[in-house]
Parts: sequence; C-alpha cells; structure tokens
Amino acid sequence: MTSGSMTPATAIQFDSNGKLKHFLTIAGLPREVLVGILDTAESFVSFGKREIKKVPLLRGKTMVNLFFEPSTRTRTTFEIAGKRLSADVINLNASRMSTIKGESILDTVRTLEAMHTDLFIVRDSASGTAHLIAAHLPEYVRVINAGDGRHAHPTQAMLDMFTIRRAKGGFDGLRVAIIGDLLHSRVARSQIHALTTLGVSDIRVVGPRTLIPTEIESMGVTASSDMREGLAGIDVVIMLRLQRERMDGQLVPSEQEYFNRYGLTEEKLRYADANAVVMHPGPINRGLEISSTVADSSRSVILEQVTNGIAVRMSIMATIMGGSEERV
Amino acid sequence: MTSGSMTPATAIQFDSNGKLKHFLTIAGLPREVLVGILDTAESFVSFGKREIKKVPLLRGKTMVNLFFEPSTRTRTTFEIAGKRLSADVINLNASRMSTIKGESILDTVRTLEAMHTDLFIVRDSASGTAHLIAAHLPEYVRVINAGDGRHAHPTQAMLDMFTIRRAKGGFDGLRVAIIGDLLHSRVARSQIHALTTLGVSDIRVVGPRTLIPTEIESMGVTASSDMREGLAGIDVVIMLRLQRERMDGQLVPSEQEYFNRYGLTEEKLRYADANAVVMHPGPINRGLEISSTVADSSRSVILEQVTNGIAVRMSIMATIMGGSEERV
Amino acid sequence: MTSGSMTPATAIQFDSNGKLKHFLTIAGLPREVLVGILDTAESFVSFGKREIKKVPLLRGKTMVNLFFEPSTRTRTTFEIAGKRLSADVINLNASRMSTIKGESILDTVRTLEAMHTDLFIVRDSASGTAHLIAAHLPEYVRVINAGDGRHAHPTQAMLDMFTIRRAKGGFDGLRVAIIGDLLHSRVARSQIHALTTLGVSDIRVVGPRTLIPTEIESMGVTASSDMREGLAGIDVVIMLRLQRERMDGQLVPSEQEYFNRYGLTEEKLRYADANAVVMHPGPINRGLEISSTVADSSRSVILEQVTNGIAVRMSIMATIMGGSEERV
Repeated sequence: MTSGSMTPATAIQFDSNGKLKHFLTIAGLPREVLVGILDTAESFVSFGKREIKKVPLLRGKTMVNLFFEPSTRTRTTFEIAGKRLSADVINLNASRMSTIKGESILDTVRTLEAMHTDLFIVRDSASGTAHLIAAHLPEYVRVINAGDGRHAHPTQAMLDMFTIRRAKGGFDGLRVAIIGDLLHSRVARSQIHALTTLGVSDIRVVGPRTLIPTEIESMGVTASSDMREGLAGIDVVIMLRLQRERMDGQLVPSEQEYFNRYGLTEEKLRYADANAVVMHPGPINRGLEISSTVADSSRSVILEQVTNGIAVRMSIMATIMGGSEERV
Repeated sequence: MTSGSMTPATAIQFDSNGKLKHFLTIAGLPREVLVGILDTAESFVSFGKREIKKVPLLRGKTMVNLFFEPSTRTRTTFEIAGKRLSADVINLNASRMSTIKGESILDTVRTLEAMHTDLFIVRDSASGTAHLIAAHLPEYVRVINAGDGRHAHPTQAMLDMFTIRRAKGGFDGLRVAIIGDLLHSRVARSQIHALTTLGVSDIRVVGPRTLIPTEIESMGVTASSDMREGLAGIDVVIMLRLQRERMDGQLVPSEQEYFNRYGLTEEKLRYADANAVVMHPGPINRGLEISSTVADSSRSVILEQVTNGIAVRMSIMATIMGGSEERV
Repeated sequence: MTSGSMTPATAIQFDSNGKLKHFLTIAGLPREVLVGILDTAESFVSFGKREIKKVPLLRGKTMVNLFFEPSTRTRTTFEIAGKRLSADVINLNASRMSTIKGESILDTVRTLEAMHTDLFIVRDSASGTAHLIAAHLPEYVRVINAGDGRHAHPTQAMLDMFTIRRAKGGFDGLRVAIIGDLLHSRVARSQIHALTTLGVSDIRVVGPRTLIPTEIESMGVTASSDMREGLAGIDVVIMLRLQRERMDGQLVPSEQEYFNRYGLTEEKLRYADANAVVMHPGPINRGLEISSTVADSSRSVILEQVTNGIAVRMSIMATIMGGSEERV
C-alpha cells in the first residue's frame, strides 16, 4: 500500500512500510485495512468464552488510558482488552493531572513516553487531540483514538462493522439507517466512513432537522426527518445516543415529543426489513431514543456490540503493536 | 445437597448440581458450606507469608469491583485477594458511572457481563442489590455480596468466624457478645446467621435500646442494654463500628456518654471470660466504641481479622469459581 | 557497614545486618549505598527499550501506592516501576480513605500491613510521615518516601544523580547550581545531601532572597541571588519548579519579574560552562522558571530524567526488597 494518495491525516496512521501504526480515524483508510481488523477480531471473539482469556501478545508492554474526558465504560473496555493481551495497563485521570499543575497536553504525553510507555488510548472533548499526540511522539509509540470531540470514534465504528458483518454475513447491498442526534455524534461520522469504505451504498440518516448537519449529504448519505421514509426496507438500524448532557434545550422540543417521533418502537421498526437488526452504542436511554421492548428483543444486537467491542479493540491493538520496532 | 428446602434467596446461591455459585447471604446456607469455606481458607492464611503470594487459580478470569457505595478498605481486600489468585481486576467507581449517564444498574451489569467478565464483587447502599444482579446474570457469572444496605455483609461475617475458630478452636459451647449499633449493622446480621449455623447457642447483643431493633430476639439472640450483663462469662466480644455518618443525632446522647456506657475498656472487659478475645471489623473509632488500650492489647484480634479477611475472600472466590462452566 | 555512628533517622533505614531496608532520606546514607543504587539502575535503564520490559524480581509481592497528597506523575512512575518488576500494585486514594472514616494514618497502615502487603510508597504533605510509618511497621515491610512535606524527596534526588553521572561521567570536580524556590523544595534538600555525599564540593543555590532559607549555607552550599554569579562556570543547572500553588503572593513580585531575573533563558545559560546540562524535576512551567527554547534544547536532559526515574525507582525497590525476610 502506498501513502502517495493519502491525506496527511490518513498518512500519519502508517509507518514507512505502509503498515498501520496508529488508529485515529477511519476516513481515508483503505478497505483492506478495515477488513484485516475485522478478520483478526474473529479470532478474539470466541476467546472471551475460554477458561483462560489471556494471550501474551502485549506482555511487557505498557499501555496508558489517557482520558481527558471521563468515560468509565469505554475506558473499561480498553482496560479489559489490554489486560487480556497481557499488557500492563495504567489508568490516568488526566483532567486532574493536567489542570492541577498547568502542564500542556504535549508535555504530559512526552513525559509519559519518556517512561517508555508503548501505547496511548486517548479520549478528549476536543477534536484532533489523538492526532496531535500521534504527530509529536517518536516512531515506536502507538496511539488509538478513543473519541475526540465531535470528530471521530473509530474503534466504536469498527465494532459496529464487525457486529453488522456477523449479523448480516457481509456488506453487499446492505441498507443502513442511522437515527438520532447526528449533529453531536462522532460515532455516526466514523460509521459513515466505515460503511462507505466497506461498500454500503444505501446509508440514510434520520432525525429532527435541528440535529442533522446540513453538510452531511456530502458524505454520500441520504438525510430525512421522517422515520417511515428513513426505515423503509432497512437491514440495519443504528440508534444514536441522545446526549442529554450536550443538549441546550433548544434543539429538541421535549423528551416525550422526541420519543414519539424518533424513538425506536415496535411499530416504527415494522417499516424496516423483517430481519432488520437494531444497534446502539450504549448506554441506552430507555423510553427516550429506544423502547425497552425493542432494546430487549431478539432483533437487538446491543449486547453483542459490547462483546464485540472487546474483540475488535484487541484486534486493533494487536494489529498496530504487531510490528512495533525496538526503541533506539 | 438438595435445594428443596431452601428459600428462594438461598437457592439462587447454588447451581443445579447443588454447588455454591454466588455468595450473597449466610442466611439459609448449610453448615457444611460454611465449614468448607473456613477449611479452604486455612490453606490461604499461611500463603500471605510466602515469598511469592500468588496462585494461578483465577488466571485469565476478569473480576470487577463494582462498588456503588465507596469503601476503599473493603475494595482493597478484594483487589488483593483477586490479584493473589491471578485474576485481572477492574475497579469501577460505579456511582459516577451510573449517575453521569443515567443508566440503570441492571443495564450496567449486563454491559459488563457482555465484556465476558467472570466475577462481580458488589457493594451498594441499598439492600438486595447483589441478589438483584445475581438473579439477572447468565449461569456462568458469579456474584459476591460485599455489603448491601443494612441487609448483609457475608464475607465480613465469614472472616470473623474464621478468626473465632482459630482463636477458640471451634464453636461448641461458645458465648459470643455483639456490642454497639445493631440497628444499622449489616455485619451483625450476617454474624448472627453464621454463629447460629455453626452451633453457637449463647449469642448476646448489647447496646442502647435505640440501637437494638425490637425484632432481633426472633433471630435467637438475647438483647441487653447493660454491658455487665451482656459480657458476663463471654468468650468472644465483637464490637461494631459506630457509624457516625449514619447517625442523625437523636439515637445517641453524646459520644462521651456512649463511650462511658458501651465503649469497651479494660474495666468492662473484666466482666468477660479471662481468655475472651476482642474483635472489631474496622476502621476503629478509638475512644468511642473501644479504648486504645483494649484495641492494642493482646486480647485484641482486630489485625488478625484483617489478615484472615484476605484468606477467607480468596477461599470464597476459589470456592464459587472452582467449578465455573465454560460459556456457551 | 555499622550503624553505630548513624543518627536514628538514618539507622532506621538499615536492618540488623546493615542492609538497606527503607529509603526515607538521603541524609546520612553512606556513599557506597548511593553508588550501589546508581550501579543497579544501569541494568534497568536499557531495560525500558526491550521488547518485554518485565522481570520477575517482585513477583507475588504486593506494593501499595499510599499517596496522602495527590501526585499523578510520581504515582505513575512508581506504578510502572512496580509492574515492570512484576509486583501487584494497589493504588490508594488515601486522603479520601482516611478522612471519610476518621482513622489515623498508623491504623490505616497497620491494617494494610495485616493484608500482607510488602512495600509502601508513601507521599504526604507533612514532613516525617514515611519515617513515622517505617518506625511502626514490622521488620519485613519496606517503605519508600515519595515526598514528605518540605523535608525530602529522595528518589527524585537519586534519579537526578543518575542523570548527572550519565551526562557528566562522574561527580569529581563538578560544579552544580540549583535555581529557584529553595524555601519550599524537598527536592533541593535531597539533592544537596546526595551531591555532597557523592563528592561534589561546589554546590550553589540561586534565587530571590525570600525563597532561600537563611540556614541553607550550613548544608555546605553557597547561596546567591544573582544568576550571573550563580551560574559562572557551572556544569549542571538544576531548575526547581516554582510551586505556584504554594505561593502566598508575597514571596515573588510577579511571574514576569521572576522570569526576567531567574527564568533560565539562552542568555543566562551562557554564564554556565559551554557543556552544561539543564535539569528540571517537572512538570515545567514554560516561561516562568524556564524558557521553552532552553527546555526543548539539546542542553536539556529533562526527559532523560523521566526515563531514568523509572530505572532508579526499580533499582531502589529491587535493592530494599532483595533480601526481604520471610514473614514470621
């Protein structure tokens, strides 16, 4: 693979041999890279059921969970994935670290790197933080973006792709709808990039007009504010979390009104294909973006997404750490 | 062992082969189960003194410390016990996790289970949380109750039984007094169940009338508000912690008055048998429920309780995880 | 080695065979002990670059990070060092632990010791806490002082000595300047003891008169409030962190004024020897005690200090744990 045609944001993810070394964004990644990650994840997904859920792939490596924005759930998935690969995992309450003593993010990261840490899992409320860190670290350190502002959440999108492939057998001819708050969702942006790269041509986004960014159709998706239209014949329904804490009260009339129009109920799910599966990144707001009946039904693959999240994160870690060079 | 005569709350602790799979409450557990845990703990108690304090019994297993109520001390004992059994230990500041994003406890636990975690250590300020979780998890997941509301704290009671057995050689003919705030004490309830099951017939509870629940004598104990009467000829004195933070100022006249009447001093200890030992679950309030002289005397086995706490928790974990099935 | 001529504060650091068992202060430690630690650290410094950065020296040992004063950075270095030696590491947010339930520090530590923990890393805002703990624990438990009040920060001083020896080849004839807030610096006190013991005779301290303790010249150093004088011909420039949070606003006229007079810039660095290296314990305040140009220049060994910090802490742990007796 050559990086000649890549944007700088994509090129930084590869080493000089064209091997993936960071996982920052899905935008611009070649199809075979995504498929490679999904294939490797297959070997880890059965792994969680074994008596001993541990392989020594990252033994003696130090992984740092560097979360400038709190997220117990995502941090826990990375901690479990790292420990099952036998890495030493360090959790940093980074917001406190950087604010108490006024050090810049780059000084913090350079300091941690000087301790010969090998892998940074970075989450921040600002877009671009993981890129910034990757751009300023030596060649032998790896970075995974665990969510940056409204920009990207690429490991979540990859576990969603893995879940879709297992539920539907592949991506050819698939019709996928993403429902809810597209405006604030880094997950949706990463999902659209991944689906497009994997060959899905019918991608629809559905939500109130106030929560659909105007420029989103330029990503090759169809926007709608009508659930019947958006769900017609759909194979995969991806619900987004309504980020109550990010709402300013002006974008959504009321929770009840939102649920009436966009909450996924059995009635609305009938618009979709009879074998459609329902996904949600969690944690779910029951009775707001999804009814309990649907969330707990056989159509829901929400808990499979969680299980797959460990396998896919192990796959991404193993992929980017696999050929890590000796330090010089 | 058959579960035919068990209450539902007891039956849930056993699998279909009659093997213990959760440890939620001592009420209703057969004597041989308690003795089995104490016997297994014997092999772990000398263990702490070895050069290498680690066995691979839980290698590759993921244990989650799910503490909805903060308790650094109890959390630490479970973390140490889990690591000495070679488990991967995940600590969750669960109160934050569940309140920030409004997810229910069951959704939180189902999500963690979907990550293929094997063992939950649960603590909550509400009674019944560990039971609720155990009732909703698949067959292959294990739950230990690390304290739920005023209901039970069974691992604490088991380490107390272990400490008594080592100090006194057994339970036959033993006279045991439990002193202090019986009203708010989940520890005392579990102790009474354990002592009764292990054959202790002379159990006395002593404290101000405002801190002795009226129904407690139905558990087969003798209540008293007089220390001389309560301690007469006693072999084991179990002091309870006065939960300052739970007092509303109406139940106890003053700390000085409380200490004068119920604080364990050398003078009051003379009412007891000359070889009586003194226990306390810690942390102790010196000068409130116990004098420093007694707490630090040769009669005190308070620090032995802490040491035994690691061994007994390792024993309980090993017992319930021992026959854990493969996931399906 | 005999402890006959040692002060009590030094003697407590040795066992009855004259072997180092705690690392509390550098004051009074013989030269060969310091050199031994530096020599052992050499074997660990290349270690961080290896594929597998783990040795089983402390396997099965339990190490407790007992930080009564928060310090994510220092705690992380000890956690990484401990894990690379294969210890089980327990992090305690001790301030919360001790304040929620009102237990004394000694009761907390005795309780943790009763869990058969082997090594305490202690940090506290009060001087003498690590000593106090070491004096009250049984023979087989080890204590490392990770900073106590204004008193000492001996592991930081040892990593500085290690950095100096690697940069300069040794200590003979070396001229060292320590710049900044000497008044509040436990680091500087430990550095002066270490440099003196290792044979450095020209040690200068430089800073505003309000930040230089009057009695400091009794430690064998030369005090100055003039940077030109302090830096003349110097081989090693050690910048101290200006503890903004400890200033009461009366000791320093303004940050700009401070930087103008004492901030290390390229201009001021010209007073020093042409091969002088620049050190700082971090985190650095860019533009306050040091300019970015100097901090990021080839003269700066600030990140080497961080790297060496892991190796030196591993060396100290391995040294004091090496001959730890069996518990009795």
